[in-house]
Amino acid sequence: MKTAAAPTSPGPAALEAAQDAQRFGKPQRGWRRRGYEVIFESDTPAGHAFDVALIWAIVASIVVVILASVAPLAQRWGTWLQAAEWTFTLLFTAEYLARLACVDRPLRYARSFYGLIDLLSVAPTYLAVLVPGLHALIDVRVLRLLRIFRIFKLSRYASEMHFLASAIAASRRKILVFLGFVLMVVLVAGTLMYVVEGPEHGFTSIPTAMYWAVTTMTTVGFGDITPRTDLGRLIASSMMLLGWGVLAVPTGIVTAEMSSQRRSAAAEADPAPILRTLLQPGAARCCSACGSTGHQADAQFCRRCGTRLPAENRPPD
Amino acid sequence: MKTAAAPTSPGPAALEAAQDAQRFGKPQRGWRRRGYEVIFESDTPAGHAFDVALIWAIVASIVVVILASVAPLAQRWGTWLQAAEWTFTLLFTAEYLARLACVDRPLRYARSFYGLIDLLSVAPTYLAVLVPGLHALIDVRVLRLLRIFRIFKLSRYASEMHFLASAIAASRRKILVFLGFVLMVVLVAGTLMYVVEGPEHGFTSIPTAMYWAVTTMTTVGFGDITPRTDLGRLIASSMMLLGWGVLAVPTGIVTAEMSSQRRSAAAEADPAPILRTLLQPGAARCCSACGSTGHQADAQFCRRCGTRLPAENRPPD
Amino acid sequence: MKTAAAPTSPGPAALEAAQDAQRFGKPQRGWRRRGYEVIFESDTPAGHAFDVALIWAIVASIVVVILASVAPLAQRWGTWLQAAEWTFTLLFTAEYLARLACVDRPLRYARSFYGLIDLLSVAPTYLAVLVPGLHALIDVRVLRLLRIFRIFKLSRYASEMHFLASAIAASRRKILVFLGFVLMVVLVAGTLMYVVEGPEHGFTSIPTAMYWAVTTMTTVGFGDITPRTDLGRLIASSMMLLGWGVLAVPTGIVTAEMSSQRRSAAAEADPAPILRTLLQPGAARCCSACGSTGHQADAQFCRRCGTRLPAENRPPD
Amino acid sequence: MKTAAAPTSPGPAALEAAQDAQRFGKPQRGWRRRGYEVIFESDTPAGHAFDVALIWAIVASIVVVILASVAPLAQRWGTWLQAAEWTFTLLFTAEYLARLACVDRPLRYARSFYGLIDLLSVAPTYLAVLVPGLHALIDVRVLRLLRIFRIFKLSRYASEMHFLASAIAASRRKILVFLGFVLMVVLVAGTLMYVVEGPEHGFTSIPTAMYWAVTTMTTVGFGDITPRTDLGRLIASSMMLLGWGVLAVPTGIVTAEMSSQRRSAAAEADPAPILRTLLQPGAARCCSACGSTGHQADAQFCRRCGTRLPAENRPPD
Repeated sequence: MKTAAAPTSPGPAALEAAQDAQRFGKPQRGWRRRGYEVIFESDTPAGHAFDVALIWAIVASIVVVILASVAPLAQRWGTWLQAAEWTFTLLFTAEYLARLACVDRPLRYARSFYGLIDLLSVAPTYLAVLVPGLHALIDVRVLRLLRIFRIFKLSRYASEMHFLASAIAASRRKILVFLGFVLMVVLVAGTLMYVVEGPEHGFTSIPTAMYWAVTTMTTVGFGDITPRTDLGRLIASSMMLLGWGVLAVPTGIVTAEMSSQRRSAAAEADPAPILRTLLQPGAARCCSACGSTGHQADAQFCRRCGTRLPAENRPPD
Repeated sequence: MKTAAAPTSPGPAALEAAQDAQRFGKPQRGWRRRGYEVIFESDTPAGHAFDVALIWAIVASIVVVILASVAPLAQRWGTWLQAAEWTFTLLFTAEYLARLACVDRPLRYARSFYGLIDLLSVAPTYLAVLVPGLHALIDVRVLRLLRIFRIFKLSRYASEMHFLASAIAASRRKILVFLGFVLMVVLVAGTLMYVVEGPEHGFTSIPTAMYWAVTTMTTVGFGDITPRTDLGRLIASSMMLLGWGVLAVPTGIVTAEMSSQRRSAAAEADPAPILRTLLQPGAARCCSACGSTGHQADAQFCRRCGTRLPAENRPPD
Repeated sequence: MKTAAAPTSPGPAALEAAQDAQRFGKPQRGWRRRGYEVIFESDTPAGHAFDVALIWAIVASIVVVILASVAPLAQRWGTWLQAAEWTFTLLFTAEYLARLACVDRPLRYARSFYGLIDLLSVAPTYLAVLVPGLHALIDVRVLRLLRIFRIFKLSRYASEMHFLASAIAASRRKILVFLGFVLMVVLVAGTLMYVVEGPEHGFTSIPTAMYWAVTTMTTVGFGDITPRTDLGRLIASSMMLLGWGVLAVPTGIVTAEMSSQRRSAAAEADPAPILRTLLQPGAARCCSACGSTGHQADAQFCRRCGTRLPAENRPPD
Repeated sequence: MKTAAAPTSPGPAALEAAQDAQRFGKPQRGWRRRGYEVIFESDTPAGHAFDVALIWAIVASIVVVILASVAPLAQRWGTWLQAAEWTFTLLFTAEYLARLACVDRPLRYARSFYGLIDLLSVAPTYLAVLVPGLHALIDVRVLRLLRIFRIFKLSRYASEMHFLASAIAASRRKILVFLGFVLMVVLVAGTLMYVVEGPEHGFTSIPTAMYWAVTTMTTVGFGDITPRTDLGRLIASSMMLLGWGVLAVPTGIVTAEMSSQRRSAAAEADPAPILRTLLQPGAARCCSACGSTGHQADAQFCRRCGTRLPAENRPPD
């Protein structure tokens, strides 16, 4: 079995660094070049230390936002949390300005994904100060959400994320077709339950019924809406078996395939050897000329070298 | 590992188009032939544009049906939704009549799956008008369901659906046996819980207990019926472990198989090298010339220096 | 890839028939031999017809038992259901006596698995008549359960069930270890929640907490008991991620393995071919001497014939 | 396909025994050597009997702790359970002292994982007696938890556990990245629901919303918190499809891969043979001498007559 070994050529992280240097313009010399090497690259000890410090700062700031949302904690520690939030905002502002300063094409960086994330990380706190009536317009919860987006600053440090993203992109057509099929089933089954159960049992509209259908087919099963009629329960059972079966049936088929391949390749201990011999005649036949195994049960000639195979199973050991 | 390459011969969509042309009778000449090419086929720009427009119309009409079922929206926008519904009905009626007109054997099309779907797409609105007392006989919800079936008009545009359908058809015996086994467990376990818990705990009859057993084995777990007695909870735990184990155990076995095959092919870092050598004989073959390890299990030559490799395991250094 | 083809030797069903003939003693001649061929074997048209009729009778009798447990139906159709139940009981009694009559060693059959199931299928109805006070001693629900066991008579007709059973038996050690590990986690996590949440939040004893732990780890989630404290919810989240991760992580790993193998074997369309070439140098290298592919990225010599490989990737077509 | 064969060298259990003998110091002679062989090793009949007895004692003591937590049982059988608990404590104390006595380096054993578990198994009961006010300080439930940790004494008897542990350790980076990704989704989606639904619908803080997001993405779905707004239900549906899709999509992709490989290797019955031939070039290679099909994809010789096969697809009949 052939596996893909780790490449000895430059890894994905280094390639991305090279691409960024081209796209944003790495300065030629001076303190700006040094700043670029520290902030954008990770080769030097200073660059690596900067990355580590920034990761901790991001994680810590997220924790502050999470804690600030818990009412008892906000009451007790409100001033400290506010102070921490301002500290992080100033820190990230400094980082953002430093990034802009240390590239040749700052507008290009500002318009890139990470540039926008960096801006979004600091904007809420300034908005809350500069636009006094903001609290009345936007719920403070929305500001919390915008701060939470700082988590995306972390993904520049995990190259596996990009590998995951490209793997998903490569299979996107299959995923879309699969999703389309699931949505079709959710639509039809949901409407069916809407007809059968009706608003008096909780299925007040087709969108509500579709929401219930999704909770049922994905085997989540909140239980806020449940079928009461016998026909409804029958349809629900079919949907549950379908949603679970989509996971269970292929898993079983794949396992059966692999098991039968393993049994073709090597004899397995079995309480009734005669039975196994009769059931799987070809299980452990071995070509006398080239020694290959795994021949189909009805094969009479070796597929690798053409020599005639023995008819019966040679008992193992 | 050899995979099935993409075919260079005509794809499934083109083959189906050819089959349809034979079955329904593509006209030889005139506007009917041009109409057939636009409506039934997608080769020409007009044909492709027709398909895109029809897909959007289908999706839009489904959205209208969904929105019409939400009571607040129906109250506010009722007239507009009605008008949209009539527009779509007239559109689909025109499409249906056009399809019938542009084939040589219209009755054959009318009796085919898509012909029936097309008829079902427009029938409810006409029925509601032509049969005034229909509202009293059939719930308006049923009419919504019939309109929802328009979604199946979309599946002629997704050839992957047919691939999926034929894959399922090919494995139908395995699926039926698996379902049969699951139903048997649901029946016996459900009746067992009916005996143990009884009607006073919600298990009012065997069908109800079977419905609960399905929600439990498929790990949905609505919670509308739950076991209260200790023995009932014990049986329920076994069922849950069975339903989840059917997914988890094969997944674990398959992963273990693939991992052990990978480890056979390439050496992996291990805290106790002696242990690994003794456990996996082929893992640490060592090239006598250059000393490299990690050779694939079926390799006969060293990939680094080209020297022939020994067949059995030599202990490393 | 080597697959196990269907054997051309006698199938498992025929082998079982041969085993039964040996074990129970197929009569040599006369009407008893003819009876054996019809009842126990399926080769002749009469034997096949008997099997089909019996399967329908079993399914119908199970439906009768299920319907009899639904109170409204029992009230309305009670007499008919009773009559049907007696009909089936007499039918199955006749079948049981016929089986005993047509073998040479009836006691052996009576003690076998199917013999006991056959006896259990008819016993409840007779018991209910012969032992008048039975209703007071055993709940009628228990009698329903015993009748439900007739479903096991069906499994003699599905040879795939035996295949499934032997596959499970072959992996029983792995399954037991896996179950043991899950039970250990359930015990420790359940007790932990019992300590953290306590009886006032529903976790009244360690068995109850273990039941909750099972519903959580198997992702069923009834919701009859839920954690209220923050620490309890944190522990619960870990358990949920563990129970779901046991399914998701191996699935993801297996898919990643297969994807990388596919990419080693054939080039895949990619929006940035240069990037892919740099990231996976060995993806489509082909040995000029023997033509094999799938070489590891750091290989310099072909592992099959020892010839030196080209260093860079040859772009596909 | 080459699988890792069962090693003929000493198994992992024996290797661990050897490592323990080195680490803790197996005595050279006398009763201490005999004691070491019985207690720490399993080669002799006495050693094996000791292991079996100890396993039963551990299981029995865990059962006692579990039963003692059930209030009705504690009331009825309190004295007996207490007596049993003291018996086991004394038993395990004797075992612990015996282990310490029969090694040359007792402090090393006392500091090892199993040494600490052994100490933790007996400590609670002594603490409860020696420190009278302990009940007021530590809930008796905590003492139960400490006793439950005796279950870990069992894992020295299951070498598969270590195999499982090392398999997980080998993949820990992949697992961490996967978990990191899941946590990122949980954080963002949870905060989004916190914004959309708000405290009046149960989403009182970001941690609470994250707990709900975990129950939803892992398809557990307790139902203690559920979305009420339409937008919230839409976001919830996306999360459910994501959590379930992570399991379903790879499973489907893997199954499709394996099915297509199987179909490459052997011809499968198909209602449109022309279609299949055109779609899967390698499927219908035909031996020119005997005309058989269904050859494996890597076969070079016909398995029925030994003649060399053509490389490309020849149309059948």
